[in-house]
Amino acid sequence: MRESDSGRGISRKKPSLGKEALDLHKKLRGKIEVRSKIAIKTTHDISIAYTPGVADVCRAIAADREKAYEYTSKWNNIAIVTDGTRTLGLGKLGPEAALPVMEGKALLYKQFGNVDAFPICLSTTNIDEIIATVKNIAPVFGALNIEDIETPKVLEIVDRLDAELDIPVFHDDQHGTAVVTLAALLNAMRLTKREPETTSVVVAGAGSAGYGIVKILKEIGIQDITVTDSQGVISKSRDLTTMNKYKLELAEMTDRDGTKGGLSTLEEAIKGRDVFVGVSGIKSLLTGEMVASMNRDAIVLPLTNPDPEIHPRLAAQSGARVIATGSYKFENRANNALVFPFTMRAILDNRIRNIDQKLLVAVANALADLVPRDKLAPFNILPDLVDKRIQPAVTRAVQGAR
Amino acid sequence: MRESDSGRGISRKKPSLGKEALDLHKKLRGKIEVRSKIAIKTTHDISIAYTPGVADVCRAIAADREKAYEYTSKWNNIAIVTDGTRTLGLGKLGPEAALPVMEGKALLYKQFGNVDAFPICLSTTNIDEIIATVKNIAPVFGALNIEDIETPKVLEIVDRLDAELDIPVFHDDQHGTAVVTLAALLNAMRLTKREPETTSVVVAGAGSAGYGIVKILKEIGIQDITVTDSQGVISKSRDLTTMNKYKLELAEMTDRDGTKGGLSTLEEAIKGRDVFVGVSGIKSLLTGEMVASMNRDAIVLPLTNPDPEIHPRLAAQSGARVIATGSYKFENRANNALVFPFTMRAILDNRIRNIDQKLLVAVANALADLVPRDKLAPFNILPDLVDKRIQPAVTRAVQGAR
Repeated sequence: MRESDSGRGISRKKPSLGKEALDLHKKLRGKIEVRSKIAIKTTHDISIAYTPGVADVCRAIAADREKAYEYTSKWNNIAIVTDGTRTLGLGKLGPEAALPVMEGKALLYKQFGNVDAFPICLSTTNIDEIIATVKNIAPVFGALNIEDIETPKVLEIVDRLDAELDIPVFHDDQHGTAVVTLAALLNAMRLTKREPETTSVVVAGAGSAGYGIVKILKEIGIQDITVTDSQGVISKSRDLTTMNKYKLELAEMTDRDGTKGGLSTLEEAIKGRDVFVGVSGIKSLLTGEMVASMNRDAIVLPLTNPDPEIHPRLAAQSGARVIATGSYKFENRANNALVFPFTMRAILDNRIRNIDQKLLVAVANALADLVPRDKLAPFNILPDLVDKRIQPAVTRAVQGAR
Repeated sequence: MRESDSGRGISRKKPSLGKEALDLHKKLRGKIEVRSKIAIKTTHDISIAYTPGVADVCRAIAADREKAYEYTSKWNNIAIVTDGTRTLGLGKLGPEAALPVMEGKALLYKQFGNVDAFPICLSTTNIDEIIATVKNIAPVFGALNIEDIETPKVLEIVDRLDAELDIPVFHDDQHGTAVVTLAALLNAMRLTKREPETTSVVVAGAGSAGYGIVKILKEIGIQDITVTDSQGVISKSRDLTTMNKYKLELAEMTDRDGTKGGLSTLEEAIKGRDVFVGVSGIKSLLTGEMVASMNRDAIVLPLTNPDPEIHPRLAAQSGARVIATGSYKFENRANNALVFPFTMRAILDNRIRNIDQKLLVAVANALADLVPRDKLAPFNILPDLVDKRIQPAVTRAVQGAR
């Protein structure tokens, strides 16, 4: 039901985009390919690229596993891992149906980060099997990108893989979204002359993105954060049957003194707040009235894709000063594509093992700083994806955060 | 011990090949890469290759999984799967050390078959975990190539994956070696005017290759086959502690009437035989005296890589008429590279589900027939790897074997 509903929703507005996408995919039959870096022309070529010469390379790596980073593609290979349970906003479509998204992601990884990303779409949705499978295939990868797996399962998968593997585990829905959100927010706060310590934020959505965003906002010193999910405001006093390990952690981070129990809905929570961040997956969740009830110069970031929590025009008409969405349909795109290719490039090049909050904040600051202060404007708070300054800035940030 | 021994062995003979290989691998840092087929230039490009347009492609596949073959890279993706337990002739080097070989194989797959092959080197060597892992990652692949896993474990893995997955499972050590051996043998038999029914063969080695070779030789009607392993001749009367399920099957195929128990060594077994096929992994296993004890116009195929069971020159001096090795160091290369890229191309294009003996024999015949009868000579029994006629001939053979 949900699929066909949202399907009709999209096709009503963009009758040709889906058709164009289907045509392109049918023509290409895959957006990525595995290419050789060298051509075999002679028997000698084969003798050094393959047998028997390759035996010496194998022996060198067997003697010192680290040499795999020097002699093979491991240094630049990443797996984009999904189980097809949360593909885009469409839900459980299965692993084959997730592949076009994973290939699209691989394409962006290559074009913007020169990262060799290969899609791994799993036929199991069992948490232990996913972890075991990913650990088993890890030797050829320099890092992992976990993608579009349902919460809270995915948060445990990421935590356990991070603890059990010796390569970095990037969770784009959590880490990438947090970074791009913070980058947008940093410049929006500059524009509206706000400081973290005195800025209040409502985050709608307590999945991977909401979890990652709350953590990064806490990291920069934002104190007043309220999180809502489909059951209302997350608080320490909420019925435990509506909570999980990660929502309990969110309650601990956002309701330390246990006073949030009085609020119950987004509508109540947003009154008199400065910032709205939408990662709810719910189109039109935020009304014009809710925006109008926020503080002056409100910052509204309805990031749900493809259809945001509020149309940017309606948000503007309702008094929001700075508005950014996650969609390529609107201006001010706070999309993860600004983060994952460049951050992964820097992580791989610098052999970063742990993706911690310090690193994520540093990348967000680097992205925000790419917009010169005198050019900052409500619709110019983030650099453009094709801005060549992004990679060096992100790399410096990652190196500095070590 | 074994590694450093063979290491010294190779470097004594080829001081520069290993060095050249190390230099090449260090320079390339991976012989393959994941490339984009299209460049993102505009926001519109991203909207149809990625979100939001890709959603319609995902929905189409969710509604009909078969569409993954039309809209994604699945039709042309294969995994080259190993657990690093039998890399080249070097043994258990671990998954990272297997990667240079897997990448070399991927390179050949791409260059000669235009197949997108990605290396999957597993950190587990447990049979059930290997099978579970490969099944879990199968959705993005159109076929599998199982590679360099120790026997008899690998034979069970191949059998079970073949039974449990809906994509074809090609086991190059078994299937590829069998095909190239038969192709060489067919032309060697033409040269020496032999018929299958009256030709006697000794196969040294009862691993994946030996198993595959015996099956394909039986398929074309060769009756008299003797198999030896490190314990001597495989027979029905041999001590069961030296046998496994697949060796018992070999005994059933090659010692039906239980008369082979009298023979114990390769030396005894080879006397008065027509053909020697070496897939033992043991350098210099076959002596000149043994070749001299064979029938007139003996066919000697010492296929172990990189160092064959007998040097071709010694085999020739000892009376062998037709000699082929698996190595690129010698003339008459009966190497699997003649088989796997072309056969996989045909399998993928024709959506072949089962790789059976009929298909393998058809490919072997197609390869053999590419050498015109009037050009057949002891050192010209197989086509060259770069021969453009191979692909169409193999494709016709695969189509005809359906």
